[in-house]
Amino acid sequence: MTSQPLAARVKTLDIFSAIADDLRQVESAIEEALATEDAMLDEVSTHLLHAGGKRIRPALVMMTSKFPGAQLGRAIPVAVAVEMIHMATLVHDDVVDKAEVRRGRPTVNAKWSNQVSVLTGDNLFAKGFSMLAQTGNTRVVKIMADVVYELSRGELAQLASYFQVNQTEADYYQRIAQKTGYLIAACCRLGGVVGGAEERQVEALYNYGMGVGLSFQIADDLLDFHGSAAKVGKPVAGDLKTGILTLPVIHALKHSQHADELRRMIETHNIGDTEIDRVKAILDEAGSFTYARQQADLHLNNALAELEHLPELATRSDLQVLADFVINRQF
Amino acid sequence: MTSQPLAARVKTLDIFSAIADDLRQVESAIEEALATEDAMLDEVSTHLLHAGGKRIRPALVMMTSKFPGAQLGRAIPVAVAVEMIHMATLVHDDVVDKAEVRRGRPTVNAKWSNQVSVLTGDNLFAKGFSMLAQTGNTRVVKIMADVVYELSRGELAQLASYFQVNQTEADYYQRIAQKTGYLIAACCRLGGVVGGAEERQVEALYNYGMGVGLSFQIADDLLDFHGSAAKVGKPVAGDLKTGILTLPVIHALKHSQHADELRRMIETHNIGDTEIDRVKAILDEAGSFTYARQQADLHLNNALAELEHLPELATRSDLQVLADFVINRQF
Repeated sequence: MTSQPLAARVKTLDIFSAIADDLRQVESAIEEALATEDAMLDEVSTHLLHAGGKRIRPALVMMTSKFPGAQLGRAIPVAVAVEMIHMATLVHDDVVDKAEVRRGRPTVNAKWSNQVSVLTGDNLFAKGFSMLAQTGNTRVVKIMADVVYELSRGELAQLASYFQVNQTEADYYQRIAQKTGYLIAACCRLGGVVGGAEERQVEALYNYGMGVGLSFQIADDLLDFHGSAAKVGKPVAGDLKTGILTLPVIHALKHSQHADELRRMIETHNIGDTEIDRVKAILDEAGSFTYARQQADLHLNNALAELEHLPELATRSDLQVLADFVINRQF
Repeated sequence: MTSQPLAARVKTLDIFSAIADDLRQVESAIEEALATEDAMLDEVSTHLLHAGGKRIRPALVMMTSKFPGAQLGRAIPVAVAVEMIHMATLVHDDVVDKAEVRRGRPTVNAKWSNQVSVLTGDNLFAKGFSMLAQTGNTRVVKIMADVVYELSRGELAQLASYFQVNQTEADYYQRIAQKTGYLIAACCRLGGVVGGAEERQVEALYNYGMGVGLSFQIADDLLDFHGSAAKVGKPVAGDLKTGILTLPVIHALKHSQHADELRRMIETHNIGDTEIDRVKAILDEAGSFTYARQQADLHLNNALAELEHLPELATRSDLQVLADFVINRQF
């Protein structure tokens, strides 16, 4: 989601303190799952482990599994498998995006090659699904297989959407649900399933995750415009320069009195820092940033409302803090 | 395995005639599974469907499922999922091998891009695993996840093995088991599982598949040296030119009196048609082709011996014909 390491976040907000012990166990289990005699796989795995990551997804699995009587041993392998599959998608995404740096380190494709990335990603997918199969619960497998299906659809849709000025808000929401929402929602659903929650609680968790995921993605898209390059670790408005139109841009293309000018700028497929300043002025004037921020709040409030249905969940207040953190982090 | 279309093979040898109806149902189900509203995925799927394929793997699932009382409806979704996952590995392999043509048509990476290939492959993996999860049987999921794990290991091992003159026969066998054997063996094991076979029959099917897979791969490696370019559809000795050392080469590096000369030629990393003629003369003189052919026969005989344990399987004689075909096809 962002490029801050887990340690930094946890230190700042203690959002995962309730499950700190669980996360240590998850981390050891990830290391164990990545262990291999194969020289090349071992090099890549070590690189990925050292690159760290926030482990937000396994943390969500653990936090949403804390129902009365839940067994830690059931949740941990699922949390590990989810992180392996997430790692696989990141390794493949870096090939798709031709990215050279992730989490401050060279990507697998930059350090080795696209070939190694494709195969390492497949290897991580396979390991993740093998672990999920070992739970003996095909529902758990299907939840994650369907997430990977939607993720790949979302990435393909994004490739086809570059610089497309006629896309709608509905297109945007479908894409961010596929890219971010379904996986976060699935982590929460999986926590409920392995934690032995009742079906309506499992669905409340899913809805909570979807609200947090959508809210997070909109916040991340805003951060792309307003974060400083040094803080965010990416060039300002990198999305728009690449051709990815996010919610504030789509809003302004419809509502700004300068929509034609904005459209023409985007259709040049060549947006530099000078153009970005003008784009930001147009979006500001049209209230597009405010609108996007309101939408992020809306989805966050939807997420928080779902927590009402989960009085038995020991970590309910932690999920509330996590949701608030997602939207209130420094822009 | 080779580039002949299914229709050509079936016409020649009727090896799949016992399950021709099943295969028509499998084909419709593959089309249905690939159906999508997404424009880009639909284009790629249509391309992959038109490229055809021999459907050997789903055919093996169907042929090995014909135990008394087996339900067609249990085997077909598994056969379809296996083919989807196989397609995914082919699409990814073409990125890894930078291949431009497969089955006489441009590869997905050549026609679209590496990006589209990575994501389409992931999409096919996900669809395949989602279908396997829908069987409600996690064993079925685990069998295929473990195959994909081994396949990716084998491909990575192959990348690391290019032009490595010190590799052993054991290295070769591990690699071809990972690249070809485990998947063929898994198809046969899956047929047994969904056909309701007893455990010792399931293992006999697995061993049959492994023997056929290894035998096939050695035969294919021989074909690379001795097939005409027009017939095989690939350049002669393409493997060696690429740096892939197959069984006859590994044999000659150990047993030929010209082993030093052979080693030096390989270590130039630059083997053209002139060198290939000399390599073939060296391998011929060292009896390396004969040795490889004997090894292929050995694994085939191992496969055939396993069929003795399967008196109840209605398609047992068809599996015998199929195995004979694998090794006796035109070189």
